[in-house]
Amino acid sequence: MQNNQLASDIARPDRTVALTRGVTRLFIDLGFSPLCEFRLANGRRADVAALDRKGRLTIAEVKSCRADFDVDEKWPEYLEYCDQFYFAVDPAFPQDILPETEGLIIADEYGAAISRNAAERPLVAARRKAVTLRFARQAAQRALLAPCEA
Amino acid sequence: MQNNQLASDIARPDRTVALTRGVTRLFIDLGFSPLCEFRLANGRRADVAALDRKGRLTIAEVKSCRADFDVDEKWPEYLEYCDQFYFAVDPAFPQDILPETEGLIIADEYGAAISRNAAERPLVAARRKAVTLRFARQAAQRALLAPCEA
Repeated sequence: MQNNQLASDIARPDRTVALTRGVTRLFIDLGFSPLCEFRLANGRRADVAALDRKGRLTIAEVKSCRADFDVDEKWPEYLEYCDQFYFAVDPAFPQDILPETEGLIIADEYGAAISRNAAERPLVAARRKAVTLRFARQAAQRALLAPCEA
Repeated sequence: MQNNQLASDIARPDRTVALTRGVTRLFIDLGFSPLCEFRLANGRRADVAALDRKGRLTIAEVKSCRADFDVDEKWPEYLEYCDQFYFAVDPAFPQDILPETEGLIIADEYGAAISRNAAERPLVAARRKAVTLRFARQAAQRALLAPCEA
């Protein structure tokens, strides 16, 4: 909890928002449907989660700077809730500190590109069902703030 | 197709929007997560679809006036894609023309109430999975138009 608070203090919010936008655009280009700030059942919030056409769930966690990664001991908790996990960082980020076992996205505010593919760790059916429903309900709640189509 | 066009011409759009808002509020009160204008795999658009906490999908089809119902021969096509189906009408609508086998919601622009419960016709697992994923992706796409949480 203290570390989470520390992480919030250290993360550069403007930079995080900018990189999140770039990742969102990448996911849209890939045919995914992205949702930012997805709250997982374990209480963590994923910066960007996205469902593809086949129901595969990808999570991208934005790290705005080295300190933002250093204080985050809990990122492995995302792995149980997605099929693929990526760190998303800007080009200046020291990539060698990131675990090579996870995917890597290089992003800016205009877009992003996959630099290293994420490992595929397919969710078991019951978890997939629960996390997809959770995503659907959160997305619908967010969509209430958007203009309804005529 | 001609009938669909006829239905669009006959439905009173302002009234439909108002009743849709009332139904949406009812669904939120019930703890459902509603999504308006949900496009089904068969090409039909449901006025309001909603997922509850357990993943049960409810569809409400708004009928703004008698003619709007009379020209709609295709409403049974919704039944294959939800666990519960409701017609939603305003208090002045001639309720006796609606099939008694389906649920009934009486709505205005401020809210709505269930007048007759819908029959439960649980989706089979594969259909539920497909329709929930479809809902999730459409809701996320709609949510992109909403402001992202900080």
